Amino acid sequence: MIIEKIESPKDVKKLTNDELNILVKEARTALLEKISRHGGHNGPNLGVVELTVAMHYVFQSPVDKFVFDVSHQTYIHKMLTGRKEAFLDAAHYDDVSGYTNPKESEHDLFTIGHTSTSLSLANGVAKARDLKKETSNVVAVIGDGSLSGGLAYEGLNNIVEQGTNTIVIVNDNDQSIAENYGGIYKNLRTLRETNGEAADNFFKALGFDYYYLEDGNDLEALISVLKQVKDKEHPVLLHIHTMKGKGFKFAEENHEKFHAGGPFSLETGEYLQATNPLTYNKVTTDFLMEKMKNDPTIVTVNAGTPMLIFNQAEREEVGQQFVDVGIAEEHAATMATGLAKNGAKPVWAVFSTFMQRTYDQISHDLALNNQAATILVYGASVNGMNDESHLGIFDIPFLSHIPNLVYLAPTNKEEYLAMLDWSIDQTNHPVAIRVPVGPLKETGIPDETDYENLNKNQVTQTGSGVALIGVGNFYSLAEEVAENLEKKHQIKATIINPKFISELDTDLLDSLETNHQLVVTMEDGIISGGYGQTVASYLGNTHLKVQNYGLDKAFHDRYKATELLAENGVTVENICSQILNVSRETNLSM
Amino acid sequence: MIIEKIESPKDVKKLTNDELNILVKEARTALLEKISRHGGHNGPNLGVVELTVAMHYVFQSPVDKFVFDVSHQTYIHKMLTGRKEAFLDAAHYDDVSGYTNPKESEHDLFTIGHTSTSLSLANGVAKARDLKKETSNVVAVIGDGSLSGGLAYEGLNNIVEQGTNTIVIVNDNDQSIAENYGGIYKNLRTLRETNGEAADNFFKALGFDYYYLEDGNDLEALISVLKQVKDKEHPVLLHIHTMKGKGFKFAEENHEKFHAGGPFSLETGEYLQATNPLTYNKVTTDFLMEKMKNDPTIVTVNAGTPMLIFNQAEREEVGQQFVDVGIAEEHAATMATGLAKNGAKPVWAVFSTFMQRTYDQISHDLALNNQAATILVYGASVNGMNDESHLGIFDIPFLSHIPNLVYLAPTNKEEYLAMLDWSIDQTNHPVAIRVPVGPLKETGIPDETDYENLNKNQVTQTGSGVALIGVGNFYSLAEEVAENLEKKHQIKATIINPKFISELDTDLLDSLETNHQLVVTMEDGIISGGYGQTVASYLGNTHLKVQNYGLDKAFHDRYKATELLAENGVTVENICSQILNVSRETNLSM
Repeated sequence: MIIEKIESPKDVKKLTNDELNILVKEARTALLEKISRHGGHNGPNLGVVELTVAMHYVFQSPVDKFVFDVSHQTYIHKMLTGRKEAFLDAAHYDDVSGYTNPKESEHDLFTIGHTSTSLSLANGVAKARDLKKETSNVVAVIGDGSLSGGLAYEGLNNIVEQGTNTIVIVNDNDQSIAENYGGIYKNLRTLRETNGEAADNFFKALGFDYYYLEDGNDLEALISVLKQVKDKEHPVLLHIHTMKGKGFKFAEENHEKFHAGGPFSLETGEYLQATNPLTYNKVTTDFLMEKMKNDPTIVTVNAGTPMLIFNQAEREEVGQQFVDVGIAEEHAATMATGLAKNGAKPVWAVFSTFMQRTYDQISHDLALNNQAATILVYGASVNGMNDESHLGIFDIPFLSHIPNLVYLAPTNKEEYLAMLDWSIDQTNHPVAIRVPVGPLKETGIPDETDYENLNKNQVTQTGSGVALIGVGNFYSLAEEVAENLEKKHQIKATIINPKFISELDTDLLDSLETNHQLVVTMEDGIISGGYGQTVASYLGNTHLKVQNYGLDKAFHDRYKATELLAENGVTVENICSQILNVSRETNLSM
Repeated sequence: MIIEKIESPKDVKKLTNDELNILVKEARTALLEKISRHGGHNGPNLGVVELTVAMHYVFQSPVDKFVFDVSHQTYIHKMLTGRKEAFLDAAHYDDVSGYTNPKESEHDLFTIGHTSTSLSLANGVAKARDLKKETSNVVAVIGDGSLSGGLAYEGLNNIVEQGTNTIVIVNDNDQSIAENYGGIYKNLRTLRETNGEAADNFFKALGFDYYYLEDGNDLEALISVLKQVKDKEHPVLLHIHTMKGKGFKFAEENHEKFHAGGPFSLETGEYLQATNPLTYNKVTTDFLMEKMKNDPTIVTVNAGTPMLIFNQAEREEVGQQFVDVGIAEEHAATMATGLAKNGAKPVWAVFSTFMQRTYDQISHDLALNNQAATILVYGASVNGMNDESHLGIFDIPFLSHIPNLVYLAPTNKEEYLAMLDWSIDQTNHPVAIRVPVGPLKETGIPDETDYENLNKNQVTQTGSGVALIGVGNFYSLAEEVAENLEKKHQIKATIINPKFISELDTDLLDSLETNHQLVVTMEDGIISGGYGQTVASYLGNTHLKVQNYGLDKAFHDRYKATELLAENGVTVENICSQILNVSRETNLSM
């Protein structure tokens, strides 16, 4: 096999056209073999096999600098840059991350996982090159889906302004994760339909020297156009039309299903893991479908990850009451502000890791204007995505200090739906709800709480000596700790479900002073800037001791949650022993 | 005078053409009178007098919805919507804010102060209108300067996608606060030069029904084109060419100087306040000019507020070592990451309130990639801008929990420059420096600290009983408190200058346990999610009590800093008495 001989891009350059074509076949086969057994980003990588081979054949990485947007389409790039074993040998599948990673290779410039950043990164790389009076090509590869992000537009503007060598390759497969939305896509379509010759060319309007290639999966054509644009001393935009999922018929036929996922059958195209039907996601979808039916002013907003909330059929069913703004999280947050101001009831579903792109829109637009929009925060947990670029453990620190915003952390299905129901219909506050992560918990008892009565915590067990505050997903941890303390140490702890994590229940905290010596907080996120620290601060001037449990602030990468929690002392055993230390010191009558 | 008879937009509609032209003159005169005596946004408002009168003549606010980008150009809008006294009567100048404000009038939909949000807000307002099956015009007014922001592009895309009535008025005066940068501006220029007929029209490319008006200060022409686009059932983009500073010769001649400012002379065009030559801004500029001369790889980056760091002459002098990316803060942060990765030394100067637009770029791009860029954070203080949309008191909470980022809070000139010098040349960390706010403090003694020795706090006075941690601007407050305690109560406190506010000096904090009973933190920002809470959390499980001083989390508006601090208990008197309470309880031998 040719691919087995590829130790670095240098080896690609030595190949004949025929060998290059064989390499493409071998690479695609290896890719299908791995992703079908291991899972990963399917469509994006299948579509760029030819492009990646051509890039390494024509350019000279790492002297020439490649920046891949999102970098979820770099599996072939990794195969050609000394990491082929991670694709050819199942034992090494996990040697590489699913994104570019400078720790793996000098051919990977950046760790990237969010969209629309590649052009700004490339602009900086090119500017540094110019300041150093060096010459090399800077090549950014960005998918059409990423073009909807405002940062990509800022990058385009500034690349043109700089005016020196930067080659932007728009990999246009007419598909985001799901459908594309926005005026730019009408223009891309027109350009595809006119072989790049349409009037009112978006890229020419911004000042780019524009090239179009209709068959972006034609290796020879790619090599020739890349040779054409190489070494140009001004910004070039190369628009290529590729087929997402190319070479795997099920992926060619269903782009959304095969954007990414777990292991699947190459024969049937079915994913192997049976997904549990009753999840918090499913519960959310069912609840919203029903509630929207009865209230045409409720509108669900999403930014490019619609499957989080509705599948294609459900999207068609809800029709105008669902808006996918494309991968443009900031717009989603600010649009929600406008929707609420004019009397609609927006519900914005977003992953914690992507919500962090909208800190200013949530603060300056939604919260400053105090508009009643609902934000459903998904994957906010140590048990969410575990790539360092996709962590969902920072949302309490960046959200809970924003004025006016009410942040809720439900602990079971009934509580969650009661909060959601209240949030949608109330008109006084922007509300974010931390959608529980993990198996669905049902109490069977409807939650009758009036959440308009803000910041009222729930005491689920009254004890003395130590009070355990279990935030959202970690409420069950507090229960386990309490059980352990009672069973093994005859200590009956007070257990508190705070529910509200953007403000404290100061009456409750004050009341703890009479017969408690220690307050322990547990939250499913980093400690720094989190909920527990607000408790420690409030009680800092009292006799009460406070222990905060959660994660250290770090970009943890591809970790095992149980191990990471143990390293951070977030285990029933450790928490109990820390509590017992205090009880000994202070001779608590716990 | 006609203007005195305008109680609401209804009165504008009754006027004849001649009367409308008189109203324009009177409004511009009143505007010049107020801003010359009171200060404010000059150029932006002088340029849109005719447009604002025409809008209220043609449309029917508040049934038709107006959204003004940044909303710093709404003085005339306020004159015509029941708030004319705030411009005609000096005694009422401060009755209105400098931005739209729903608390003032039903004609103001949103509180807005950051750029590029108007189109997303309008898109939400229009979508709500459609869901409610209402009909009314939604009109967004956005200046060319705001078009560089990615959120504006996301808004344009989604307005076209929605496809219903939304009228986007691009007020093109060929000027941002300073110069415009980016490909979009080349297109706007071409469109102006071709009376809107150029090929490759950016707005048509996105799918807009495009209209152009060359003289955007011609009232009759404005009225006629607005009548043309009114009630269209699809998105319209009206591009008008106006003159910034129109009607005041000094402002017409120097757009940057007269974008905004304090009182000035109508005769000479000179600002009245003499500005203190020696400020932290000036010190920064001088230091960077000198250091850049000796190192061509240092590059200062700014997003649309260049005067913060260099005036026009200085920008010309530093040449290629200065980059203004336009109003595109996200690009600045991500570009800085690329610059550092490729061996340049970026220094990004930004206001705290605008930096909050880049939380994800600082986290996912700069910090995750751990690149050595320097961020100079300006106006981060209760003494910074005091409009609720421009507060600089949230940066410690949203920055200090980001992994890898080193956040520094200098307390005087020598310390500040030593930190800046170290930060620029080191290659290990992204570093943010909280530029001191207030009068320049000079010790005269060079700071020899090696800041590579991270998180080492400085003990400036060794005492016992109580330790005072004064963060950055509030270090002097800690000194005052200590002086008061010693003079009046014979308590010699330990005084600590933390310098590093992104991590704790745990050795130092541990050492306090031996002979202290109380630790007091003071920071120039909100307490929630701030520095003091990390101290309270760390010491929560010790016998040490902790008191955190700072501001409550709220969008404070047009406050007097001294009053706000007093309301929050941040006074020498209150802090001392709180300390004495503890000393009595615990019978401290302080």
